[in-house]
Amino acid sequence: MTVFASQAAFEAALTDLPDPDAAVIAAARARQDQLTKPAGSLGRLEDIAAFLAGWQGTARPVLDHARAAIFAGNHGFVVHGVSAFPASVTAAMVDNFAAGGAAINALAGAAALDLHVTALELDRPTADFTTDAAMTEAECLAALNAGAAAVEPGLHLLVVGEMGIGNSTAAAALCARSFGGVAADWVGPGTGVDAGGIARKIAVVERALMFHHDAPAIPFEILRRLGGREIAAIAGAVVRARQLRIPVVLDGFITGSAIAPLAAGTPAITAHCLAGHQSAEPGHARLLRNLGLTPLLSLNMRLGEGSGAAVAVAVIRAALAAHNGMATFAEAGVASGA
Amino acid sequence: MTVFASQAAFEAALTDLPDPDAAVIAAARARQDQLTKPAGSLGRLEDIAAFLAGWQGTARPVLDHARAAIFAGNHGFVVHGVSAFPASVTAAMVDNFAAGGAAINALAGAAALDLHVTALELDRPTADFTTDAAMTEAECLAALNAGAAAVEPGLHLLVVGEMGIGNSTAAAALCARSFGGVAADWVGPGTGVDAGGIARKIAVVERALMFHHDAPAIPFEILRRLGGREIAAIAGAVVRARQLRIPVVLDGFITGSAIAPLAAGTPAITAHCLAGHQSAEPGHARLLRNLGLTPLLSLNMRLGEGSGAAVAVAVIRAALAAHNGMATFAEAGVASGA
Repeated sequence: MTVFASQAAFEAALTDLPDPDAAVIAAARARQDQLTKPAGSLGRLEDIAAFLAGWQGTARPVLDHARAAIFAGNHGFVVHGVSAFPASVTAAMVDNFAAGGAAINALAGAAALDLHVTALELDRPTADFTTDAAMTEAECLAALNAGAAAVEPGLHLLVVGEMGIGNSTAAAALCARSFGGVAADWVGPGTGVDAGGIARKIAVVERALMFHHDAPAIPFEILRRLGGREIAAIAGAVVRARQLRIPVVLDGFITGSAIAPLAAGTPAITAHCLAGHQSAEPGHARLLRNLGLTPLLSLNMRLGEGSGAAVAVAVIRAALAAHNGMATFAEAGVASGA
Repeated sequence: MTVFASQAAFEAALTDLPDPDAAVIAAARARQDQLTKPAGSLGRLEDIAAFLAGWQGTARPVLDHARAAIFAGNHGFVVHGVSAFPASVTAAMVDNFAAGGAAINALAGAAALDLHVTALELDRPTADFTTDAAMTEAECLAALNAGAAAVEPGLHLLVVGEMGIGNSTAAAALCARSFGGVAADWVGPGTGVDAGGIARKIAVVERALMFHHDAPAIPFEILRRLGGREIAAIAGAVVRARQLRIPVVLDGFITGSAIAPLAAGTPAITAHCLAGHQSAEPGHARLLRNLGLTPLLSLNMRLGEGSGAAVAVAVIRAALAAHNGMATFAEAGVASGA
């Protein structure tokens, strides 16, 4: 199934975003106020329960069918020496996902997420975005649709994550182009480059921003020129999830950068999203502020693969356990406060 | 079994605290560096795995037998109007724990913790600490031992929490006495008093500090005079867990205050402790700094009952899932980086 038949169809989806069910949110909040605890004392756990209620359309939301959708892609600009790892590691890690040996395998298992990995033409990296658009229109559209295809109707929750050697460089370019600032504001060590690597990343991002400085400020065009296949796929998955009213948990800096071009013009795109965590990548805090999201966790993680978001699902499960499992004051015969 | 036969035995335990196994920590760290991820990229998850390894004495720590030990007590000073709830709620909530309807029931269930509730003479509140010591020596010793009795040898992890209407007032007094500052530095809304309630709490804490200003600066004496039965029980449980090398997850402000008198003279008492979360209670951030602990979560929770610590156990489980479940670079045939 092709969800986005054209660039125009993708752009149109951004102008027709469904809202959560306000009546269901109110019902979930009313239930929280009757549970045997001081009102509001579960803090963000209460907010999470109401958030899921609104998107799932039920005052008793569940996570019986939750998925981690991970997208992998390769990048032409890695020839400029922006990563501590060779590009071959992207495919090797996809094999590791299939074999069950990666962090996301263990963390998805711990969070009872089904793991859905989409490898996007790993033997055909994007073009070098310092001298060309990363993708053709057809390639970008295919990536958006590959993302949408990973979002099955009826999912209770979607975690999105990525794997792509070098992609924190693309993420920095997307953030700078979407939210302003200079390259150095958004570039960091990624999975572990040294000061020389960071300097090379900054130079690459500056050249890409310069080369594409007259590109139209349209989400599709920004993703196509400065993104990558796995990044465009995440954007497609997040928009598709919104159409299906499926709440999303974003992972780290690269995942968030995928919706930066969308959020720059349509801040409401993040309304169905939770930020799973704030990563160690310095630009992520700035990105989350621009996206209007407060992370659930801050554990100094910087792996990607959806790993931080998968850990955050445990917090979401706790929120629903309390919301659905606690007794009311009436049921328990407890005084509800002065 | 009586763990602490006398006040002197309790004090002596604080001078004979075991350390974690440094060789096992090194082995756990070495394993982390071989897993298929950039070194250090799982951030605090890696630290948690190494921490548990050191205390459990195995490079592959587990949480097969983890417990939430919750202690409940009542306080004489509640006659001064320091809580939004009547003192009868302490016993009602203990009944709710037994019936399975409270937040900690749901959250312990979600975290696969066995729930162990100890109600400490709820029909016999402590003396009003503004005019008397809260407990006699025998009462304080009994509470310490009740805490120790909840710590079964062989536990892989212990969560400690509390229930006691008014006990954030005792916690503020313990913190001020242990770490300095004025009453207003440590008093907050607790489970939800208004500005008038906060003013009454500050006045009560100031009177208690004044009344006991010449008390010996000895942990037992501070706990006895300014604490409460559930608070002393937590102190006893934390010390007993240390003797047994069982790692502990502290809950919020009141739980932390129980070890404040110990940590003031013996900072190493927190070496086997993780701070499960930073609560919404304003004094908790200050307390955590004084205890030298960085919280795993910060979700604006303010319930007590061990609830924040129980949510944090999900993060700890994720850490161990990654540590024990991931493949090494050699196993997966992935290049390990430049």
